[in-house]
Amino acid sequence: MTRIRLGMVGGGNDAFIGGVHRIASRIDGHYELVAGALSSTPEKAAASAKALGLDPDRSYGSFDEMAQAEAAREDGIQAVSIVTPNHVHFPAAKAFLSRGIHVICDKPLTATFDDAQAMEQAVSASDALFILTHNYTGYPMVRQAQAMIAQGDIGNIRVVQVEYPQDWMTDAVEVEGVKQAEWRTDPARSGAGGAIGDIGTHAYNLASFVTGLTGESLAADLHSFGAGRQLDDNAHIMLRYQGGARGMLWCSQVAPGCENALKLRVFGEKGALEWAQEDPNYLWFTPHGEATRKLTRNGAGATEASTAVSRIPGGHPEGYLEGFANIYTEAAAAIRAVQDGQSRDAVMGKLPGIAAGMEGMAFIRACVASSQKDAVWTRI
Amino acid sequence: MTRIRLGMVGGGNDAFIGGVHRIASRIDGHYELVAGALSSTPEKAAASAKALGLDPDRSYGSFDEMAQAEAAREDGIQAVSIVTPNHVHFPAAKAFLSRGIHVICDKPLTATFDDAQAMEQAVSASDALFILTHNYTGYPMVRQAQAMIAQGDIGNIRVVQVEYPQDWMTDAVEVEGVKQAEWRTDPARSGAGGAIGDIGTHAYNLASFVTGLTGESLAADLHSFGAGRQLDDNAHIMLRYQGGARGMLWCSQVAPGCENALKLRVFGEKGALEWAQEDPNYLWFTPHGEATRKLTRNGAGATEASTAVSRIPGGHPEGYLEGFANIYTEAAAAIRAVQDGQSRDAVMGKLPGIAAGMEGMAFIRACVASSQKDAVWTRI
Amino acid sequence: MTRIRLGMVGGGNDAFIGGVHRIASRIDGHYELVAGALSSTPEKAAASAKALGLDPDRSYGSFDEMAQAEAAREDGIQAVSIVTPNHVHFPAAKAFLSRGIHVICDKPLTATFDDAQAMEQAVSASDALFILTHNYTGYPMVRQAQAMIAQGDIGNIRVVQVEYPQDWMTDAVEVEGVKQAEWRTDPARSGAGGAIGDIGTHAYNLASFVTGLTGESLAADLHSFGAGRQLDDNAHIMLRYQGGARGMLWCSQVAPGCENALKLRVFGEKGALEWAQEDPNYLWFTPHGEATRKLTRNGAGATEASTAVSRIPGGHPEGYLEGFANIYTEAAAAIRAVQDGQSRDAVMGKLPGIAAGMEGMAFIRACVASSQKDAVWTRI
Amino acid sequence: MTRIRLGMVGGGNDAFIGGVHRIASRIDGHYELVAGALSSTPEKAAASAKALGLDPDRSYGSFDEMAQAEAAREDGIQAVSIVTPNHVHFPAAKAFLSRGIHVICDKPLTATFDDAQAMEQAVSASDALFILTHNYTGYPMVRQAQAMIAQGDIGNIRVVQVEYPQDWMTDAVEVEGVKQAEWRTDPARSGAGGAIGDIGTHAYNLASFVTGLTGESLAADLHSFGAGRQLDDNAHIMLRYQGGARGMLWCSQVAPGCENALKLRVFGEKGALEWAQEDPNYLWFTPHGEATRKLTRNGAGATEASTAVSRIPGGHPEGYLEGFANIYTEAAAAIRAVQDGQSRDAVMGKLPGIAAGMEGMAFIRACVASSQKDAVWTRI
Repeated sequence: MTRIRLGMVGGGNDAFIGGVHRIASRIDGHYELVAGALSSTPEKAAASAKALGLDPDRSYGSFDEMAQAEAAREDGIQAVSIVTPNHVHFPAAKAFLSRGIHVICDKPLTATFDDAQAMEQAVSASDALFILTHNYTGYPMVRQAQAMIAQGDIGNIRVVQVEYPQDWMTDAVEVEGVKQAEWRTDPARSGAGGAIGDIGTHAYNLASFVTGLTGESLAADLHSFGAGRQLDDNAHIMLRYQGGARGMLWCSQVAPGCENALKLRVFGEKGALEWAQEDPNYLWFTPHGEATRKLTRNGAGATEASTAVSRIPGGHPEGYLEGFANIYTEAAAAIRAVQDGQSRDAVMGKLPGIAAGMEGMAFIRACVASSQKDAVWTRI
Repeated sequence: MTRIRLGMVGGGNDAFIGGVHRIASRIDGHYELVAGALSSTPEKAAASAKALGLDPDRSYGSFDEMAQAEAAREDGIQAVSIVTPNHVHFPAAKAFLSRGIHVICDKPLTATFDDAQAMEQAVSASDALFILTHNYTGYPMVRQAQAMIAQGDIGNIRVVQVEYPQDWMTDAVEVEGVKQAEWRTDPARSGAGGAIGDIGTHAYNLASFVTGLTGESLAADLHSFGAGRQLDDNAHIMLRYQGGARGMLWCSQVAPGCENALKLRVFGEKGALEWAQEDPNYLWFTPHGEATRKLTRNGAGATEASTAVSRIPGGHPEGYLEGFANIYTEAAAAIRAVQDGQSRDAVMGKLPGIAAGMEGMAFIRACVASSQKDAVWTRI
Repeated sequence: MTRIRLGMVGGGNDAFIGGVHRIASRIDGHYELVAGALSSTPEKAAASAKALGLDPDRSYGSFDEMAQAEAAREDGIQAVSIVTPNHVHFPAAKAFLSRGIHVICDKPLTATFDDAQAMEQAVSASDALFILTHNYTGYPMVRQAQAMIAQGDIGNIRVVQVEYPQDWMTDAVEVEGVKQAEWRTDPARSGAGGAIGDIGTHAYNLASFVTGLTGESLAADLHSFGAGRQLDDNAHIMLRYQGGARGMLWCSQVAPGCENALKLRVFGEKGALEWAQEDPNYLWFTPHGEATRKLTRNGAGATEASTAVSRIPGGHPEGYLEGFANIYTEAAAAIRAVQDGQSRDAVMGKLPGIAAGMEGMAFIRACVASSQKDAVWTRI
Repeated sequence: MTRIRLGMVGGGNDAFIGGVHRIASRIDGHYELVAGALSSTPEKAAASAKALGLDPDRSYGSFDEMAQAEAAREDGIQAVSIVTPNHVHFPAAKAFLSRGIHVICDKPLTATFDDAQAMEQAVSASDALFILTHNYTGYPMVRQAQAMIAQGDIGNIRVVQVEYPQDWMTDAVEVEGVKQAEWRTDPARSGAGGAIGDIGTHAYNLASFVTGLTGESLAADLHSFGAGRQLDDNAHIMLRYQGGARGMLWCSQVAPGCENALKLRVFGEKGALEWAQEDPNYLWFTPHGEATRKLTRNGAGATEASTAVSRIPGGHPEGYLEGFANIYTEAAAAIRAVQDGQSRDAVMGKLPGIAAGMEGMAFIRACVASSQKDAVWTRI
């Protein structure tokens, strides 16, 4: 089994998510990072490449340069990870997709809905795979929750409660030099959504992924508590799903004490499920009228859906990086399957792709539109 | 110290809340139950009175009869607990208030807003005390949360998340002979609110009590999942408070695995607090940027506000009945103060009274109105 | 149903456990406190009696005086609660038992083993009931754990882990004027056991009660960390039970962060149970190889053994006082049954009596003997 | 930065710990696995090598063959991971140490104390590094606990409670074909310790690592509950540390509901710390008399000791594999430092080495000796 040759756009030394992608690509040994356009600042790009042990010849000044050069090499990259601020996702992805290089792209899909539609066309026009790292779908117990709901363990779904509070923007950190906060609060780089784009899309995606439900409409109350902040840092959203389920989504970046507290609860006619990202090895299952069970990853109560993406036994906690790595590992399997001649549509399995990306963009668009009209119900 | 002579309206043998009131009245030894109109069914009233050891002469067939007779006795009741379905609250309360007998009444205030206004007048016209048992305000750590917020421990409040899910009406228990469910799903006896009246008012009241904030407007999506159920059994509500705080309130009676899961989280500019009714001896406090603290009732981190209403040391859990008893005990102190000549307005302290009741009714009214107009923002 | 006339020895104003007994006696309305020898200091006795609303004529200067006077009254007390330091338990109990007055006595049984044997004789010589308030056996989920084990839900027991850490004697509080600490660290008033007598006996009793196992031998390492402290404040004990189960017991009063952290875990061939006093409404049950279940008091998974001693539905937490009240309420039923002519042996049910008291004393004796011989295995 | 060339002894396809070592070596990108003697069964060795993408020429039939061949190659391995059953540790380690190849060895050190002493000599005679994967010392919050104790945050230590229960040997799985259980219950391959060797050594090591205390003596009650099982599957141990601290250690493999429940609590004169392996991102800290704090990895309350070995922000859980990877990553730094000419003794930092291994063996020996003499206190 040879490793897939991987490139990376963005992810210079001080970027959080770039490092995550790199670890995720290494955990199961399916990739070898061989090229990068790691920063828009040349010195930083070079320094980052050196720290990662890349061949200096394959450290590029821009994604365009990298796409051209790598496409021309016999041993060029087979896939690329795009881990830039949102507004770069589309042009970068297009450069690689158009050359048949598989793309693994961070979320949300793009900064604007126009870009998203262009991205959809670019994916459609290419034979390469497009994978969006909605990484929370990679957690074993999220997979199990999905499977349990699909097989009817909690009956028809009535209520979906999802929340994703954080606290790191409680103070005005974007004016205090925190780079992560700077671009996330800048509409030019983030798009029209602040917290809803950064984390609300994760929450919405997770709920959709686990329940299998399609959002129909929403009523959103977006707000910015940070002084002078242009984008929302807190969002209260009511949801209606096709088929009649109702939901609530709360995301916030100004909630002290909440580090990364994504949590999903689903209530059906016959039972309920609860999962919290910060304690991801547990899935709480209540068959209505019976005692709540603590299902554990690869332990008691675990089923094939979760054990298939677990590496080690129950009681040996796996976390965020392992869940992220599951996306990369499934992407590797998909890439190999395509290389073996299978059709692109047949290999995606549970991987989030362009459709999930478009749903996220539609969610952001609806949130902004609803909120501007004082939370009127708006189709997603 | 002699005990206050207490009567009870409602609370026959198989009623849940009547038994709770009786225990709450006994815990600290301030009351002696001496009379009752315990059921609208005469045989049941008599049997219940006998089981409670009441003098048969003081077991009455109706609250009117009881009010007249007791008011005429020299050793007549000094206070009465009203623990009937909602539509009886007003007429019963009026009968006693008009005779100068103090009233301790279960919530919500009344079944209809008209009755509520009449109740307000009846209270106003009387010299007797009117106490509404918003019992969750009696928990020690709720009191401490209130005090901490009042003294600025979490700074200006930004976000209020409150929820109160239960699961006991997941199935259509009201048609299966569960009496508690029958009247709660009957508009004639409950009023226009189902879950919002039964438990949503508790959640709304708790949030107001702890934060000191006044609700300004709300957008409500009420829904009934139970087949044929006329009143809401699930409510999603977005809230705006005076001063700019935003909130969410979720209450449900169709959420499997949730027994009585009232939970409040308050996020301010400087920190956050979290309290859960099912684990009431803990208050979680996060000063922004520092580690979360587990404050314990009458233990480490407890302050005067909570120790004053605690009976036993930290680590010896107090629960629902003790919290309820705090309302009764403070009511006893208020009654004695009035008996000693203090003015009615001066003695209520933290006790919920007619104002809290009217706020609850306004909340129900606004929820119903908003939901009927597809969740338009509605003034409370 | 008339109330049982109750007296109390000890329990003056600032005593912790006296107040607990009084609340426990009131919760279910079965007792009326009518007499007391509340303190060995006459002024304090009188003041305490007044605060409790006792008839001054029935506030006595000593238990002897009270026993004589009350036995002579037609409306004299029918039962007495003894809530003094340990060394007074025996003489006080004897004074009432010998006059046919039922005794409800705090634990441990006595300060010395000699006194314990004398107590056994006094109980034997009387017709009155003797109840020892091993109150932790009154918690509903403790009752359920006992019943589940008795019916084989976890199979033959292999391992018993019980612990009871507290932190209130971490500092040398006995020399700082904390009265509770003074007598507990004084061999003359407490007996030979410090932590093991005060809380270790509770832990040992709880384990025996729930498992139904009889302790065979133990190896104990008692230690005193507090400077100048004569009695143990930390004890490590290994246990062997009849039938082959092994156990560990840890009790400590110098464990920061532990308020009253009694916890029992029982592991059998087919499953396990776990219960923690500070969160008493939950019982965690693992059938071997299956997911752990969260059984809740009077809620999902609750059985008759626990619901019979619950007052309110699941999700409405009951706590320490309610568990204590269960002992009082069962004592009331036992007293009435004896009054109705049933034999003393037939009415005790699950109530802890003289036998449990003697087991506790044997446990203390064995701990001290073992520890003095460097933890040699010692028969209990 | 070039990768360290790594070999592996043991770790064929169905081995648990071999896979863990491989992932741990990959996470931070410091190693490249290039050679293996992956199984004593040739076909399995070859199949495992192929699955891992090893050059077939570097898949060896025995560790001896591999040591000879790799030492002779210019591009031979620089380090080797030994992940076999215990009795192979010594001969395998010696083969590589004697050729100057660094050894990363699973614990316990060896099967017998004689082998351990020989291992000590082999390490002493070599210039290569010897690292023992006491992986639990690699968890960030374990590192923080160590640092906090070292700087006096909880004062002088009084009580150490450590436990490590599992449930996977509750049934007689060793006769049901579970390979992991077979060799662990076989004295020839495991040595004299069953649970104490497999997991008890981890618990003992963790307590020593965090507290900095040296065990002085112990009293052990080893027992085997599994029918026909020759080695202990449950151990109750009392401990005395130099300086006066007392401790308890419980390890078990027959405790239903416990997956891998390693837990450490340390109580000092000024405070306490608690850490549980199954929820490893939290460290609970109680300054005596104050509220307990929930310190989070790389989040609120985290200090340099833990952030230095964290990869991602608080709220993004890291787990078992990341903790294990910290050992590998620190080993890589040590190997590079030695390659850069630093002395072997200067580069180990917090890495567990031969000394920790000898302490573990002394612990096993003392446990067995004490238990054979009915738990007499035995010097470690």
